Amino acid sequence: MSTLFTKIINKEIPSYTLAEDDNFYAFLDVNPNAKGHALCVPKVEEDKLFDLDESVYIELMRFSRKVAKALEKTIACKRVGMAVVGLEVPHVHVHLIPLQTMDDMRFQKKVEMDEAAFKALAKEIRDNFNG
Amino acid sequence: MSTLFTKIINKEIPSYTLAEDDNFYAFLDVNPNAKGHALCVPKVEEDKLFDLDESVYIELMRFSRKVAKALEKTIACKRVGMAVVGLEVPHVHVHLIPLQTMDDMRFQKKVEMDEAAFKALAKEIRDNFNG
Repeated sequence: MSTLFTKIINKEIPSYTLAEDDNFYAFLDVNPNAKGHALCVPKVEEDKLFDLDESVYIELMRFSRKVAKALEKTIACKRVGMAVVGLEVPHVHVHLIPLQTMDDMRFQKKVEMDEAAFKALAKEIRDNFNG
Repeated sequence: MSTLFTKIINKEIPSYTLAEDDNFYAFLDVNPNAKGHALCVPKVEEDKLFDLDESVYIELMRFSRKVAKALEKTIACKRVGMAVVGLEVPHVHVHLIPLQTMDDMRFQKKVEMDEAAFKALAKEIRDNFNG
């Protein structure tokens, strides 16, 4: 059975796309710690980050850096934080979180956004990714 | 003025070394979220992860993966989590944290260890890194 993220990659479940190439996909977390909280996932299904083939892991990190730079261009923040945890969805995902305070990294405080806000933000980040 | 981590790299401040090469250094966090909480730092002083040159960033990620694999060999855990925050020390550092629960990623709960325990653990991880 395919993971939640494979369903998102395959557009069986809608998402706010930020960037995509042959091997990776980036989209907005719909339960964000902070505005612009993004997830970068490999299209290959692997549960744990460090079980990815080294080459896939390295390319995931390169892709995530490009997404992070688009976030930094889009959202006023002190910096973009990165976290890989993975205790919930068994498909590697890199969290990229525009930070104001340490609390934005704690996965406790959540930000409310409506669909129009998500759509507009995703477009802005996409434009900065491609620009 | 050199950062706290540069002083650690230069052995002006002692640390529990896990791994070192020409460009990177890994050591135990002395205020660990969980047993085996490690920090991987580039020897070059840079404040923000995504401001590192792409090649240094990629090699830091490659080095961190090797350290994470040594942690996984050494410590019984569900997986090793990764986080880069950096709001406190202005020198890039990758947190690698052996996880049992999401709380281990929140930088709130801390584990107490004495010097003998840190030393023994660091040796075990070093042996697994080199082994």
